[in-house]
Amino acid sequence: MKGGGHEILLIIALILFLARLFGSIFSRFGVPSVIGEIVAGLVLGPSLLGIVEPNEVLKLLSEIGIILLLFHIGLEVDFDILKKTGIQAFIVAVIGAFLPVILGYGVGRYFMGLSDVASLFVGGTLAATSIGITVRILQEMGKMKYRASQIILAAAIVDDILGVLLLTMLYEFAQNGTFQAFSAARYSMYVFTFLIAAPFVAYVAAMAMDFVVKRYGDHRVIAPFLLSLMFFLAYAAEKVGAPEILGAFTGGLAFSRRFRIPFVRNFRVSSLTLDRIEGIIEPLMLVFTPMFFVYVGLEINLREIDFTWNLFWIFLLLSLVAFVSKGIAGIFVKGSMAERFFIGLAMIPRGEVGLIFVELGRMSGIFDASLYAVMIGVVVFTTFIAPFMMRFYINRTGLFAD
Amino acid sequence: MKGGGHEILLIIALILFLARLFGSIFSRFGVPSVIGEIVAGLVLGPSLLGIVEPNEVLKLLSEIGIILLLFHIGLEVDFDILKKTGIQAFIVAVIGAFLPVILGYGVGRYFMGLSDVASLFVGGTLAATSIGITVRILQEMGKMKYRASQIILAAAIVDDILGVLLLTMLYEFAQNGTFQAFSAARYSMYVFTFLIAAPFVAYVAAMAMDFVVKRYGDHRVIAPFLLSLMFFLAYAAEKVGAPEILGAFTGGLAFSRRFRIPFVRNFRVSSLTLDRIEGIIEPLMLVFTPMFFVYVGLEINLREIDFTWNLFWIFLLLSLVAFVSKGIAGIFVKGSMAERFFIGLAMIPRGEVGLIFVELGRMSGIFDASLYAVMIGVVVFTTFIAPFMMRFYINRTGLFAD
Repeated sequence: MKGGGHEILLIIALILFLARLFGSIFSRFGVPSVIGEIVAGLVLGPSLLGIVEPNEVLKLLSEIGIILLLFHIGLEVDFDILKKTGIQAFIVAVIGAFLPVILGYGVGRYFMGLSDVASLFVGGTLAATSIGITVRILQEMGKMKYRASQIILAAAIVDDILGVLLLTMLYEFAQNGTFQAFSAARYSMYVFTFLIAAPFVAYVAAMAMDFVVKRYGDHRVIAPFLLSLMFFLAYAAEKVGAPEILGAFTGGLAFSRRFRIPFVRNFRVSSLTLDRIEGIIEPLMLVFTPMFFVYVGLEINLREIDFTWNLFWIFLLLSLVAFVSKGIAGIFVKGSMAERFFIGLAMIPRGEVGLIFVELGRMSGIFDASLYAVMIGVVVFTTFIAPFMMRFYINRTGLFAD
Repeated sequence: MKGGGHEILLIIALILFLARLFGSIFSRFGVPSVIGEIVAGLVLGPSLLGIVEPNEVLKLLSEIGIILLLFHIGLEVDFDILKKTGIQAFIVAVIGAFLPVILGYGVGRYFMGLSDVASLFVGGTLAATSIGITVRILQEMGKMKYRASQIILAAAIVDDILGVLLLTMLYEFAQNGTFQAFSAARYSMYVFTFLIAAPFVAYVAAMAMDFVVKRYGDHRVIAPFLLSLMFFLAYAAEKVGAPEILGAFTGGLAFSRRFRIPFVRNFRVSSLTLDRIEGIIEPLMLVFTPMFFVYVGLEINLREIDFTWNLFWIFLLLSLVAFVSKGIAGIFVKGSMAERFFIGLAMIPRGEVGLIFVELGRMSGIFDASLYAVMIGVVVFTTFIAPFMMRFYINRTGLFAD
């Protein structure tokens, strides 16, 4: 067990401790603990202390965290509600993904004088909602079971897919200077096939696992087999070009208590196994999920941002685009006005997919250093502010008060 | 979340699945599942399929596994039994650590014609028992609570420390050609200080955690704070030159139900918190601990061993040394003859510290390729065979039958 490189244990110890400490302190002041975790990342990372640098190991642990979170969210999806909200969610997702692209393109092209590709990258960065942050906040507030929350979740998943689809096309466009309808269609087909196949695979695996548990009384198989399945689905999703969190999410769906495959209504995972699964997922989530949000904080270097007035106005304008475009998307949903606005608010935080856009923009030379800083700033700003707005809005309007 | 390097998720999925599958199958045939897990490593690793290679990420996950295991073992230590077995365990450890070194040195020096240093490395490889494997077997058989098992555990911990101490001295000797009593004394002092200080630190942390849980009703702090403490203690142990598993073990001790610091008898971690801790540790262990044993299998490449008769006899002779030296150590313990032999048997499996000896021997040029192969062979052989012997012996003699 000896010999070199053990600093990583100290780093993980620090991250786990600070993330929970900040999370709990923030919680006590009514702030979602996810923000405390991002702040822990800012404190440990290059922005403040500079003790911890993002690396491959921490990245993997943070991915495990987001995979567990999305699996858990899938596990809790209520299909009866989803059936009723499907079209609503789709409307929110499509409007909420394309509006930021169009408005962002406009700002880039006409206010900042960028090229077409760069302008589309600016818009694309603002297309996808961060499922992780939004749903974590709803979960912490105990609001996941409401219809509006289910629409938000479904819409966030759909616009993540749209975001990745857009990224794939734009990236190709940036590389070759041409748009290839063929590969976009092929990509869409892959993702679509995955979305159909994954729940079946997960469902069969769930039934097999449940059989082993009941037949041999060996409940020790649950934890390793469950994680194995999660990681496999995440990998498979990534392989077909979808975000890996989509794989984890579909896996969770297949295990959820209300999941049924048409015509095989009689086969369901036993309630005892499901209880055990929940008992396994919870401690794993408490350890790994904060790692993801700490990692978001680690990846930001506030010191690198060279603040000028010009950048500041662009930042404000793009933040406005980020807020307004999602806000508008919510209005087209059926429901009370309070619900509509809340859905728009909840779609505001950008996260993983947005950061990937920014990163690819920088790597391919489309974004220069200052544009890169501004775009990261906008993504971070939406992530920081939206939870406060959501909380404030809920308290103010008495939404979900029943 | 996208972009490169996601094969690792597939690899972890494969490892988790196969380790549990083999573990459960082996279990059903009465073989400890730890052997199934090592076999899973041999199958996935360079020995058979060659799909998975040892790497830094898997190494970290396997370390987390062994840290969790040792913490859990510490948690279950019964201090009343340990108080009664302290001297007995010390005798087993000292004899069981020095006898293999002397006998191994003799074989190396006079049968194989090796240098003094190389001969001492041969002996040193056989000095330390693998706590992980031995205790895992006892745990799986539900025998941890017996006096003999407590002696075995304590002796394995002490001889691990002796093994690492020996390694530190020998390594320095190999590098400089001189033995430095000063640095050995300093090292011993560090480790001793750690052994005194660590349980206090862990105890204070445990009390603080328990206070937060009760005062704020926030039980979400338990899982992250507990792992943070474990990793910190593992890191601190490694920092003072002790094996990191020692840190995890002392941490577990401080949380155990029977742990008391003199004069502060009234402060104890509440039973509710301890129940929660056990509920958290179990799923984490089921996921991570097999990773360690799979990693042991991954690190072995059976194909690299060039089998000749000469090597075979040396292998047999050293295996005999490995078996006999530990077997003799058990005889000096008080108790029934059956107990004495069993203690000797249980001390046979070599593991982590032995493999570190072999690795350092190879890296510093003391072991050539064939000697390296033989030494790994002996370590693996003891690891494979001892569990069968332990099982057979228990069934045959009816030990622990009460």
